Amino acid sequence: MSNVDRDPILLTPGPLTTSLATKTAMLRDWGSWDSSFNAVTARVRERLTAIISGRDTHVCVPMQGSGTFSVEGAVNTLVPRDGHVLVLINGAYGKRLARLTEMMGRRLSTFETADDVPTTAADVARALDADASITHVGLVHCETSTGILNPLAEIADVVASRGRSLIVDAMSSFGALAIDARKIPFDALIAASGKCIEGPPGMGFVFVRRSVIEQCAGRSTSLALDLYDQWTYMERTMQWRYTPPTHVVVAVDAALEQYIAAGGQAARYRRYAANCEALISGMTEMGFKVFLDARVQAPIIVTLHAPADPKYAFKPFYDEVRKRGFILYPGKLTQVETFRVGCIGAIGPEEMRHAVNAVRDSLRALGINMGVATAGTPRATATARAA
Amino acid sequence: MSNVDRDPILLTPGPLTTSLATKTAMLRDWGSWDSSFNAVTARVRERLTAIISGRDTHVCVPMQGSGTFSVEGAVNTLVPRDGHVLVLINGAYGKRLARLTEMMGRRLSTFETADDVPTTAADVARALDADASITHVGLVHCETSTGILNPLAEIADVVASRGRSLIVDAMSSFGALAIDARKIPFDALIAASGKCIEGPPGMGFVFVRRSVIEQCAGRSTSLALDLYDQWTYMERTMQWRYTPPTHVVVAVDAALEQYIAAGGQAARYRRYAANCEALISGMTEMGFKVFLDARVQAPIIVTLHAPADPKYAFKPFYDEVRKRGFILYPGKLTQVETFRVGCIGAIGPEEMRHAVNAVRDSLRALGINMGVATAGTPRATATARAA
Repeated sequence: MSNVDRDPILLTPGPLTTSLATKTAMLRDWGSWDSSFNAVTARVRERLTAIISGRDTHVCVPMQGSGTFSVEGAVNTLVPRDGHVLVLINGAYGKRLARLTEMMGRRLSTFETADDVPTTAADVARALDADASITHVGLVHCETSTGILNPLAEIADVVASRGRSLIVDAMSSFGALAIDARKIPFDALIAASGKCIEGPPGMGFVFVRRSVIEQCAGRSTSLALDLYDQWTYMERTMQWRYTPPTHVVVAVDAALEQYIAAGGQAARYRRYAANCEALISGMTEMGFKVFLDARVQAPIIVTLHAPADPKYAFKPFYDEVRKRGFILYPGKLTQVETFRVGCIGAIGPEEMRHAVNAVRDSLRALGINMGVATAGTPRATATARAA
Repeated sequence: MSNVDRDPILLTPGPLTTSLATKTAMLRDWGSWDSSFNAVTARVRERLTAIISGRDTHVCVPMQGSGTFSVEGAVNTLVPRDGHVLVLINGAYGKRLARLTEMMGRRLSTFETADDVPTTAADVARALDADASITHVGLVHCETSTGILNPLAEIADVVASRGRSLIVDAMSSFGALAIDARKIPFDALIAASGKCIEGPPGMGFVFVRRSVIEQCAGRSTSLALDLYDQWTYMERTMQWRYTPPTHVVVAVDAALEQYIAAGGQAARYRRYAANCEALISGMTEMGFKVFLDARVQAPIIVTLHAPADPKYAFKPFYDEVRKRGFILYPGKLTQVETFRVGCIGAIGPEEMRHAVNAVRDSLRALGINMGVATAGTPRATATARAA
């Protein structure tokens, strides 16, 4: 680190940089049985539900652990033992959703497109019409492996029109992209504390349609991840079933207060979009190429092709940028050499411009020439966007 | 709260009162991919393993979530799909261990004693000799429902001598009671961050015998709770498989540093024993009766009979004590009216004496007479201990 006692800025898609007000909320100990903590839990659940305008239709079930614990809990709780899940895949998180579905013993089918190709509503319609045994569809809204956005609203309509149940992993989109439960039909939507609401990591949450969760007793093969059991216990006692991450929960409460005060989802979207724009324009000007077509790029995380210069390697590049106070994220693609930069967290376009400058200085320090950028895919529309 | 801006002291067995140094460690954000955070994770695993002297035999696998998530992970990862688990029960945590074993589809048998009766090694020997199909034994070391201590070393010897595998829930004993992996044979031992090492809640950890976990690929029916997968990924990358609760992990690291500086397990045991002694002598002097026989009472949490006075009810009593700055814990027994007081956390005998005084003042404020205490069990040896 260049500054002995200054935290680097996390350009990672969770954990991310949180505000000092959020972190200082963790300076207290709370009794998990105490009514003051129960009130915090209730407020967090209400505020989260308000973000999707889901109060009339959905319940918010918080769950200990990372977001994946909540995803597994949603599938295990909603899908009957003899259910059949179609998982839509265009990245690592879709693959993970498929894997956990299979491991718990539910019947699985998959529909996979390339990392840079969104699943379409027509794809889903075709798959559902071809197999009447599919009961549930699993969709990743924004695939953090690349930053690609899948068309949630259109897919949700197709799934609903065919009477199937939709489970949405909205981990990296919730809070930043508009998701309105009054307009988009889904039975479960999952996110986590350490993403766009800018809390510390340590808890996930699932919005489940009330009429659906009421039917879910006894489906889960996991006790810890049973959302039905968690929900009914919480409704009865106001408490979490098992020890909650109390410090994380109160920090999420503080983060949500700041989220509302700053203008809610619309304001958060604008800031992240400005971050993304500052990043992409600065990086493309330097000669970097964005992996995704601009039309499917969510302003959450950006995948960039690695420099073509043979002197480039991710680790020394990462270390140089880190020395300058910014933490990048490695790529997650196997076919193409890439790295990723998150646009989310308690940062603004100014920090993104500093980050771009740090990248430029790092390339210079490493003697890396950006004259010719890698052309890993036939698409080159990313530069068009920056123009 | 009597003091507007002062935290109450948590006399609850996790979450508990943590030190300010532990809480302030959470004032930084960490990238979960960054080598500085990897170093924290490695140090936490090493320090935890050192507490049980397990370095030569066991690996430490941390896991997101509450302790129950780690317990479920241990059973799901260690027990083959056609395994048969004997769970020893004398309280709520034994029942929970049995329930999660059954839910995940493993064959279950139980051996149950009353809440105030420890399981003996002879009980276990009898059960194992009677059923050769039992592959694993599940034991709760210190049952937090009452505070009762089960004879871990003796039971471990019996299980080992019969060639079965022992899984120990040491949630509330680890770090305070001596557990030496060189002397006590077990295949898995589970604890969590928010107990006797005095960290915030949010992560558990499992010590698994290295030669055992190496055989555990593909056993788990849960992806999120698969300890084998978590372990192999961590060994390969130094990282957690899924987003770790970064703030909690660094706070645990800080808590362990203080734990070592204060003198480790022996010192922690002495402080808790002094806390327990101060509590029991003060409370019995006031006329309270301890639920457990002193010989089986661990210095972790103490169950006390409720006052016999019909004016007593837990909620107003709790509120009065809380007003005075102390948070008690409700009882967990169905047959007898009790409440519980934890002896663990960043507190000493002085705080326990203050708590006893707060209880006395609360009884007076509520007009509750301690003249005759409830005699809910034939045992009355608890007073003998205080004498």
